[in-house]
Amino acid sequence: MPSPLLLDGKQIAAQIRKELKAANALRISIGQRPPLLAAVLVGNDGGSESYVAHKIKACADVGFESRLLRCSSAISQSELLSVVHGLNQDEQVDGFIVQLPLPEHIDEQVINLAIDPSKDVDGFHPVNIGRMALGLPSYLPATPAGICELLRRNGITTSGMHAVILGRSHIVGSPLAQLLARPGEPGNCTVTLCHSKTVGLRDHCLRADLLVAALGKPGFVKADMVKPGAIVVDVGTTRVADPSRPSGFVLRGDVAFDEVAPLCKAITPVPGGVGPMTIASLLTNTCQAFLHR
Amino acid sequence: MPSPLLLDGKQIAAQIRKELKAANALRISIGQRPPLLAAVLVGNDGGSESYVAHKIKACADVGFESRLLRCSSAISQSELLSVVHGLNQDEQVDGFIVQLPLPEHIDEQVINLAIDPSKDVDGFHPVNIGRMALGLPSYLPATPAGICELLRRNGITTSGMHAVILGRSHIVGSPLAQLLARPGEPGNCTVTLCHSKTVGLRDHCLRADLLVAALGKPGFVKADMVKPGAIVVDVGTTRVADPSRPSGFVLRGDVAFDEVAPLCKAITPVPGGVGPMTIASLLTNTCQAFLHR
Repeated sequence: MPSPLLLDGKQIAAQIRKELKAANALRISIGQRPPLLAAVLVGNDGGSESYVAHKIKACADVGFESRLLRCSSAISQSELLSVVHGLNQDEQVDGFIVQLPLPEHIDEQVINLAIDPSKDVDGFHPVNIGRMALGLPSYLPATPAGICELLRRNGITTSGMHAVILGRSHIVGSPLAQLLARPGEPGNCTVTLCHSKTVGLRDHCLRADLLVAALGKPGFVKADMVKPGAIVVDVGTTRVADPSRPSGFVLRGDVAFDEVAPLCKAITPVPGGVGPMTIASLLTNTCQAFLHR
Repeated sequence: MPSPLLLDGKQIAAQIRKELKAANALRISIGQRPPLLAAVLVGNDGGSESYVAHKIKACADVGFESRLLRCSSAISQSELLSVVHGLNQDEQVDGFIVQLPLPEHIDEQVINLAIDPSKDVDGFHPVNIGRMALGLPSYLPATPAGICELLRRNGITTSGMHAVILGRSHIVGSPLAQLLARPGEPGNCTVTLCHSKTVGLRDHCLRADLLVAALGKPGFVKADMVKPGAIVVDVGTTRVADPSRPSGFVLRGDVAFDEVAPLCKAITPVPGGVGPMTIASLLTNTCQAFLHR
């Protein structure tokens, strides 16, 4: 078995940023303003802080403006709704995100539904999800779109593949199932969506030409669950305690990389696989939001 | 093998109509008006004429008002949009449908997007599709919802089943995949969505605990594609020429019933299976639309 192709999200995201930066510089050279992404961060969750910081930094890298709105974890739902309404109405803001998860006393769907779909660069609003399902232009959810772009830019054609997706979340598994099943490329996969109620999970995994793990269970996918020659995409990024690191933790994917990689035709690393692609998709959506105003 | 349970949509739809009728009579007895469904029929396609006639008759059966708007097949897109806008604004109309297919010179999605989501009792508008995907209250597309109701009222629990769906249409296969995969009952299935680009279709079918055929290919599913003990749902209703009938045609499902039925734990007939359930779902959605105004 030859060594697997590493699906290097870090490198491809850098390429996408380079393209966005060049187009942005061109627009600025003819007197246009840059796109502006706003991010709402509620509380001080370590993961959320880190994700938002990466998004803000990515904006700076490509010359987009950004704005970070910090809210106390004690903010009420109606106060957070006011923040969202303010961003909806702010002419300077092209798109914005409300970083998840939110504190338990806030209903995430109430906040999600309040976001103007034309500024919903996370692609989580029902209007964008419904438009995606119908194949109409929309903001695609960032992680599924990033996975598709990662496959596309690695020259992987998915038509006719059997894709098996582990995890049915609203932000990864379920929308990715739709994107991979629909006509087009990437797409045209036979898609099997597995989840916590799946019976015989290992057998499903073993039939996958393209296996996507989006469970948030570190090291869950073992070598005996992967068909030789499969393409494996690991969406998991769980913080696992590691006292030997300055941060005190290490990011672990859902795939036991060391034992699975030798079997694969191609595989994403964690970190440096899907994560950077998610941020690249967010920038792409922000650019779209700017262009459509 | 004992003889299969016949999933009798005609009988269950009659039961649903009986329930809707009783609730409606009660509302009328306290002075409320009945729900009103409007249907827009463009042209004179035989199938469409028949479907709309069934829907109008079903309204009468349960005591709902209905209104049929006939348009020439030469109607322009903008004229049809005016009809839709009129229905959106008509206070007397609780819900309405635009019977598909439309003539080729009209973009179905343009019409679909013009329908007020709160009156979209077909459940085809992106807002309703997106809300369904997120598990929010919405009008469910009539055929997938009817299939779920048919399973529920036959006491079939689907949790943990492997459901294999043939056909990825926006109105049946794709939304049904979402309904069967999501948490709840019916639901919690591992779902495989197959379509024209699927490789090894027979093998996929043979693994199904619940096999749903929504291809529009008469007699496509043969006995050698069905696992013994499977539940088979046939969505196909293709008109096949039959000179021996007064109508000149016979309705044929996607399943070769005579050879498949003996293998099954349960199976829907065609006609009298999914078709009546679709109309029952439309009535249920119309009642919801009335109650939510």
